[in-house]
Amino acid sequence: MVGVVGAGQLARMMQPAAIALGIPLRLLAEADDASAAQVIRDVTLGDYTDLDTLEAWAKDCAVVTFDHEHVPTGHLDRLAATGHTPRPGPAALVHAQDKAVMRLRLTALGVPCPRHAVVSSPGDVGDFGAAVGGFPVVLKVSRGGYDGRGVWVVADEAAAADVFASVPPEIALLAEERVEFRRELAALVARSPSGQVAAYPVVESVQRDGICVEVVAPAPDLDPDLAVEAQRLAIGVATELDVTGILAVELFETTDRRVLVNELAMRPHNTGHWSIDGAVTSQFENHLRAVLDLPLGAPQARARWSVMVNILGGSAATLYDGYPHVHARDPSVRVHLYGKQVRQGRKVGHVTAYGDDLDVVRERARHAAQWFEGRLGDDGSIFDDDEGAGR
Amino acid sequence: MVGVVGAGQLARMMQPAAIALGIPLRLLAEADDASAAQVIRDVTLGDYTDLDTLEAWAKDCAVVTFDHEHVPTGHLDRLAATGHTPRPGPAALVHAQDKAVMRLRLTALGVPCPRHAVVSSPGDVGDFGAAVGGFPVVLKVSRGGYDGRGVWVVADEAAAADVFASVPPEIALLAEERVEFRRELAALVARSPSGQVAAYPVVESVQRDGICVEVVAPAPDLDPDLAVEAQRLAIGVATELDVTGILAVELFETTDRRVLVNELAMRPHNTGHWSIDGAVTSQFENHLRAVLDLPLGAPQARARWSVMVNILGGSAATLYDGYPHVHARDPSVRVHLYGKQVRQGRKVGHVTAYGDDLDVVRERARHAAQWFEGRLGDDGSIFDDDEGAGR
Repeated sequence: MVGVVGAGQLARMMQPAAIALGIPLRLLAEADDASAAQVIRDVTLGDYTDLDTLEAWAKDCAVVTFDHEHVPTGHLDRLAATGHTPRPGPAALVHAQDKAVMRLRLTALGVPCPRHAVVSSPGDVGDFGAAVGGFPVVLKVSRGGYDGRGVWVVADEAAAADVFASVPPEIALLAEERVEFRRELAALVARSPSGQVAAYPVVESVQRDGICVEVVAPAPDLDPDLAVEAQRLAIGVATELDVTGILAVELFETTDRRVLVNELAMRPHNTGHWSIDGAVTSQFENHLRAVLDLPLGAPQARARWSVMVNILGGSAATLYDGYPHVHARDPSVRVHLYGKQVRQGRKVGHVTAYGDDLDVVRERARHAAQWFEGRLGDDGSIFDDDEGAGR
Repeated sequence: MVGVVGAGQLARMMQPAAIALGIPLRLLAEADDASAAQVIRDVTLGDYTDLDTLEAWAKDCAVVTFDHEHVPTGHLDRLAATGHTPRPGPAALVHAQDKAVMRLRLTALGVPCPRHAVVSSPGDVGDFGAAVGGFPVVLKVSRGGYDGRGVWVVADEAAAADVFASVPPEIALLAEERVEFRRELAALVARSPSGQVAAYPVVESVQRDGICVEVVAPAPDLDPDLAVEAQRLAIGVATELDVTGILAVELFETTDRRVLVNELAMRPHNTGHWSIDGAVTSQFENHLRAVLDLPLGAPQARARWSVMVNILGGSAATLYDGYPHVHARDPSVRVHLYGKQVRQGRKVGHVTAYGDDLDVVRERARHAAQWFEGRLGDDGSIFDDDEGAGR
């Protein structure tokens, strides 16, 4: 029995892999109708920040893993001490929880990162800006930010002061140089406690307003040497940090064609969703195989190109209504809906298309996602009249 | 919400498809620890032969579908009358429930079948034997048989008398000629209430003791004209019988290269399990799309060859223990375990391998299944010493 803390779409997408493997999941859910709670039999409602709740729930779990990275380190230590092995473990996970810790460790390991400094005043930000060649610089909360929240680009010391004023004093801030990048990449690996690592093809991740909107696997026109470097870097970080499960390394490909680490995540990751339909073994199955210390599955792509496009909450209130058009237009597009209430900008599903022609594959995936979002139709914005009439 | 009656592995394997589509399943289960009951949130324990139980459970279901074909026709009529549309409907399903009804109807439609007759005495069997050129002939219970149960090959009228003596008098018996066949094939189609049909590639099904043990997709060396004829026949039967969901037509390929219908099943079928890993859209997803009257998904194969081998209960009590060897030997083999107690000969899982070389693909799938069954190892029966040593 594998325990999963958190009932978002990542836990939800672990369930098909668990069903195939014949491995029961036990879920600690924040709400009875949460995404993963809808599709798993063994659900406990409870607050993972409450240690008693967490321990009672974990009772029959040999291994505990996570939908998110928010479980406090002390709680994880306690689970480890009582035989409910958290995977990844607290010593690894802290690098995905705390960006300041992550930067310190990666820099010590010689992993290329943007220049950075922990800052405790607007004056510190000014000094940092001067040291890296001037503003703008990026400010980030060290803990708790995600999907673009907790990140600011500040133009000067006064703007930095506004950020300090808006953030509670107990939250550490990290300043980073604003990297001139060509695009964003991600290198995903799965790693087992035995030390086996499986590396997925390096992908391109397209962001909008700090949210991943589209992933192309493999990253088009990526220098093969740089692809290998990104994979080696991810394997090295997973090994040095003793990560168990999926490690996603988000990278900048700089304009001068180097890779710098942007963020780390230690769980299945949005940039790996394409693998459900596009790889021999999905990131969700390899995450479970890794946390159970089973041999890992082949991470190879099954098609020349796979494109994953997120469905973000938009004007369409009921996603289901998108099916007749999307499925009739494209019998091969793969749709994944998360059972979440539609709210503006919320990740409520994704679609994946695969095939031999990248332009065609991308158009198919984008069309399907935009249709579900309610962004196509009357105005005919990006499609011609014939298709608009199909609405 | 789609209701599913019956909690076997077919219902279990509908759940990953339902999760991706974002469609909640409600399960009527025969036992709390049944295969599908382990992996679906909304489970009611109850007896589908009890009409009150069935109706109360179906309350919020717009559509009801099935893991098996045993729900009485009268109960299905009642569901239909109260707005919980059973799909397939009772008028279609009776052809999968009653072999005598099926033979009568298919013959009326001009579908090629083995010669057959409903028999009510050993003398009838003798007359039938004489009419088809002599014994042996096949006797089958008209209702309730499966996986080789309820089927006898009788050598003479005396043997037929033994069968009559062993079967309750209310059960009708069907006599069929024993067909000289080259091999068994299966043609699967999905059909929606709107009349759309998607036809999977025709597969070869290898049987042992009346149980499907291996499926090769597509059927090797199948005459293309015969493949088209088998698909047209399945499409025709699905259309004429107004089937909703998956229809599996089990066929004999005769030694003179014709196809004859052996059996019909109106639900996802063992001969379609390869489609989970080997086709663009699995039979489970297309079954759900069909019962919801959504446009069907592409049934095409994703690889040149897929081979599915059933894992039958054998000497290994704990299937999980097979993983370290199976996954380490072959990182690309796809394993599906059903969460069922291991009993001799029971279907407890399956494996699928796919690739370009049929011999290699078949060996990979067989090795994995046999390892899970505990049939490999010390005696090295079918594998050489090097592989035996890998145990």
